[in-house]
Amino acid sequence: MHIERAVITAAGKGQGGLPLQTLVDTDGETRSALEIVLREAADAGIQQVALVVRPSDEAAYREASGGCADMLHFVHQSEPLGYGHALFQARDFTGDAPFLHLVSDHLYVTGTEKGCAKQLVEVAAANDCAVSAVQATRETNLSLYGTVGGMKVPGRDGWYEVECVREKPTPTQAEQELVVPGLRAGHYLCFFGLHVLTPGVMACLEESLEAAEHPKTISLSTALHTLAGREKYLACEIIGERQNIGIPYGLFYAQLARALHGVDRDTVLADMVTLLASSGGDR
Amino acid sequence: MHIERAVITAAGKGQGGLPLQTLVDTDGETRSALEIVLREAADAGIQQVALVVRPSDEAAYREASGGCADMLHFVHQSEPLGYGHALFQARDFTGDAPFLHLVSDHLYVTGTEKGCAKQLVEVAAANDCAVSAVQATRETNLSLYGTVGGMKVPGRDGWYEVECVREKPTPTQAEQELVVPGLRAGHYLCFFGLHVLTPGVMACLEESLEAAEHPKTISLSTALHTLAGREKYLACEIIGERQNIGIPYGLFYAQLARALHGVDRDTVLADMVTLLASSGGDR
Repeated sequence: MHIERAVITAAGKGQGGLPLQTLVDTDGETRSALEIVLREAADAGIQQVALVVRPSDEAAYREASGGCADMLHFVHQSEPLGYGHALFQARDFTGDAPFLHLVSDHLYVTGTEKGCAKQLVEVAAANDCAVSAVQATRETNLSLYGTVGGMKVPGRDGWYEVECVREKPTPTQAEQELVVPGLRAGHYLCFFGLHVLTPGVMACLEESLEAAEHPKTISLSTALHTLAGREKYLACEIIGERQNIGIPYGLFYAQLARALHGVDRDTVLADMVTLLASSGGDR
Repeated sequence: MHIERAVITAAGKGQGGLPLQTLVDTDGETRSALEIVLREAADAGIQQVALVVRPSDEAAYREASGGCADMLHFVHQSEPLGYGHALFQARDFTGDAPFLHLVSDHLYVTGTEKGCAKQLVEVAAANDCAVSAVQATRETNLSLYGTVGGMKVPGRDGWYEVECVREKPTPTQAEQELVVPGLRAGHYLCFFGLHVLTPGVMACLEESLEAAEHPKTISLSTALHTLAGREKYLACEIIGERQNIGIPYGLFYAQLARALHGVDRDTVLADMVTLLASSGGDR
């Protein structure tokens, strides 16, 4: 399997401006969050990216893509019909090829020499199937994520054969359907915001959308649960950290993580200590 | 002197998107940097604000102004002719009234119960004259700021009668023209990004612009140096911190300062310690 296309969704309500926010990247250069996501994709071998946006956002996103503008194909989601529907709008772009999927409000810092997206793409290429990046996550955070259940692939550390996918499960639902033997107690495999998907996923999305009374209720998890019954579909633990810039302080922690893993680590640590020290007195 | 109008300049090159960036404010609400600046002004009693922008930025700035949109009057700077020229575009708006001037890429955290802009406006109202907010700043940082020289106002802590204003002076120039008796050795009074200005400043700007071969070289400091020879003009040390979001990591430190002085202090400190601890291992 050769993966050279990616789909990035950026059409969500309130998500409009998020990928346009800027951070200092690990190399000390200031970039938009969008450009950092695009570079994550490029680093994984991606050549062409479909960016799903609200039509009115296209100009701003094009400007924010910086040095990655040449990779971009804009795909419009004209009505706010949810995440599954947004991804489905890129079906003509992906055609019959597998593709990397990233969300535009998550940034990554790898814990190895290989980028997070690259780790995932290599697992997909080696297994010739859809693969979702996951991280073992405490039960208390299940309400934030799509979560998979399945079995370890024998002899492969961190690879799982997915049997079940649920969007933001309750702890009870998770205990009944999503327990993965071998994980720490009270932990589940939650999505990390990165997937390699097959054309089969677009078919599953199409069926879900046609059957749904409210397209907004169609999540990617719904389609991936269907996929697990039809195709080989793996989950893979990624060595790295993810920051969701769509939550309060998300951008702040994303900046902190990039600074701590980047060229400016020592300066930023020193400046933070100064700021912390000067802030104590007036409490 | 009654001050109810403000002028905020936001037309600088590369400054386009800065005030649109979002932060979590001290009260835990997410706001654009622009809205935070507007609230600083409103807290100081300002009723109407002229925002000087590039014409193409107006729509985005209006959207980013959030709950403060009703205060706004847009003033266009159609050509990138510098900071002094940008401020001068608001002359019809300010007319014959004194006004508060803020830059859109500086945020403030007060060190007392009164906001930084409010501290300044009260000093101006009490003295019936133009006043610039200043902070004692080390000689090594002179290259970043407009700097004033003058004498302490007897019996008034932190008030100075301004005699000389220089934009980004060299240490030699500062030693010759800007030494202020009573300050710590090697320290000068540098602008804090907040001023209460009089119609006389607009007249000084106009003369400078007419005489200049290159309008871009006209800084506010040039006009304020002229003003100091014509009107009573004070500088006032402000109790608080300023963050320039236009420099690398500026937004990050601005967010950190607001978090440390806000309702989320304990949570953010705890989360930062977790992030710092987890980042040490892979160095």
